[in-house]
Amino acid sequence: MARIAVIGSGAVGSFYGALLARHGHDVSFLMRRDLDAVRAKGLDIRSKDGDFRLEDVNAVASPEEIGPADWVVCALKATALDEAESLLRPCVGEGTRIIALMNGLGIEERIAAWFGRERVFGGMAFVCLNRGKPGVVHHIDYGRVSIGHLGDEPSETELLHELLAPAGIEAVVAPNLVFARWEKLGWNIPFSALTVACGGIGTARILEDASLKAIAEGAIHEVAEAGNADLAARGSEARIDGPGLAERMFAQTATMGDYRPSMVIDYVLGRPMEVEAILGAPLRRAGELGVATPTIASLYGIVRAAQQRNAGEIMPLTPETVVPRG
Amino acid sequence: MARIAVIGSGAVGSFYGALLARHGHDVSFLMRRDLDAVRAKGLDIRSKDGDFRLEDVNAVASPEEIGPADWVVCALKATALDEAESLLRPCVGEGTRIIALMNGLGIEERIAAWFGRERVFGGMAFVCLNRGKPGVVHHIDYGRVSIGHLGDEPSETELLHELLAPAGIEAVVAPNLVFARWEKLGWNIPFSALTVACGGIGTARILEDASLKAIAEGAIHEVAEAGNADLAARGSEARIDGPGLAERMFAQTATMGDYRPSMVIDYVLGRPMEVEAILGAPLRRAGELGVATPTIASLYGIVRAAQQRNAGEIMPLTPETVVPRG
Repeated sequence: MARIAVIGSGAVGSFYGALLARHGHDVSFLMRRDLDAVRAKGLDIRSKDGDFRLEDVNAVASPEEIGPADWVVCALKATALDEAESLLRPCVGEGTRIIALMNGLGIEERIAAWFGRERVFGGMAFVCLNRGKPGVVHHIDYGRVSIGHLGDEPSETELLHELLAPAGIEAVVAPNLVFARWEKLGWNIPFSALTVACGGIGTARILEDASLKAIAEGAIHEVAEAGNADLAARGSEARIDGPGLAERMFAQTATMGDYRPSMVIDYVLGRPMEVEAILGAPLRRAGELGVATPTIASLYGIVRAAQQRNAGEIMPLTPETVVPRG
Repeated sequence: MARIAVIGSGAVGSFYGALLARHGHDVSFLMRRDLDAVRAKGLDIRSKDGDFRLEDVNAVASPEEIGPADWVVCALKATALDEAESLLRPCVGEGTRIIALMNGLGIEERIAAWFGRERVFGGMAFVCLNRGKPGVVHHIDYGRVSIGHLGDEPSETELLHELLAPAGIEAVVAPNLVFARWEKLGWNIPFSALTVACGGIGTARILEDASLKAIAEGAIHEVAEAGNADLAARGSEARIDGPGLAERMFAQTATMGDYRPSMVIDYVLGRPMEVEAILGAPLRRAGELGVATPTIASLYGIVRAAQQRNAGEIMPLTPETVVPRG
């Protein structure tokens, strides 16, 4: 059994960490919001695959309390990536491997710059989770994780698969990590951005409304084009099938009810959104590759404005201020 | 001097009608909101070119009170186009000419279907106006009107020019009406849509923010491409220069202060917006012509959702409802 450090125990970190702990691994959870509740009452997973509770959870407030681990699962919010180095370092020893279970593009490269490429993996979770009361995570649907090694070393990816699969985590080895990252963006970009750009809606409306669905489809096609250019630039022969990806994403989203992506939850609750990880970084990468992404650019600008409204950097006009002279 | 009926006396109809009346034409104004105030106190134009007041204004509540006119200036809001036929008909006699001084695409064709093509003109006002208190119109900047005849008959366009120019209205004869319509959309689409999509902002922010300006630029280029395809399809050799149009629109907007397009005023005040005229119709025309307009499609879907929020057809998520289970 492995020593595992979960750095960032929101819904994603808590859920997958709990599955690993239930399987018998020695899992420590770095957490903030839920620390006291989890110490007192354990971790409560209400899952469509069956509820379970971890009674005795090693929940900590600082990574020094964990120390070097075999595996570090980095499940921080992408907006906290700048703090990641100092949060990860105490848990990274000589043989430690690190999985970035986060949204966005370029995460693994950042981590590799701190700790070396050979030990860095990416995991793209396709899962519907919501945090409930402190210590409670709702697992609403799906759960699959696409995995890849930053160096795309098959024996390394296999090691990660052997960690996850026996714990009941559906781990799918992606052709390569870049492929998996872009494919995940094929869901995140349209559904995260549109639910925010439309002022706070769920995913159902996007599927119902032809003009919103057309935007989502356009964004997915652009993701595939940019991803394919990225794959080609890195010498990979793998290619994303844009129309096929769109079809799959729509079919899966149709089974999710009126789901609220984490970005729209952040938006409505006034918290920082993962705008740069989910929209900004792919947009910039597409730009470097010379791929036109007008739909993604539109969504980025509008979601960024929503972020700035939430942060008080833009004061929206009101009925009192909209007409400048009276 | 001509008998002129202004059908729809909002800011645009009142302003240009007042200029024509000041020049000595016999102008009648069909109005609703400001009727009592204008009857009691006249029409007050506070213009950057000099304030003036019309004391004795023929303001009426129904077009029957006006009867057949030489010129009908149709300055209704585009959302009222369905009512236009019955509002115009009492003022249209055998020799009456009709100018559509409205936003959007396809307006003149609708009017032509009711009254015949030969008498229909379009006017695209590039002007910053705001309605003030009842009976007061603020003329903040610009004032130029691009004009064209639906049949692009030069002698007819010249007649309209002779009506407007002596009254102090800068009337620019467009190469043709389709050209003028699309060029106007090159301002209306980006600035109307983005000020709404960003939750209610003025135009200054769009110029300041690189990612919003990039959306505007993309939209203007798409307008030019769609417009050029439309011109080609109609046998015209005129072409819109996309980058040149973008440069001009940005330069002009930079002189307008933090201007609020009528669409954002409607949005903030919860009134119907000209979504279909300004965004939907051009998008559909581009689609018929096989021109890709992903930026305009994105803006359309998002502004449409804003319209639906205003109309109560979408209930935005709140901190209480955003997380479905607790």
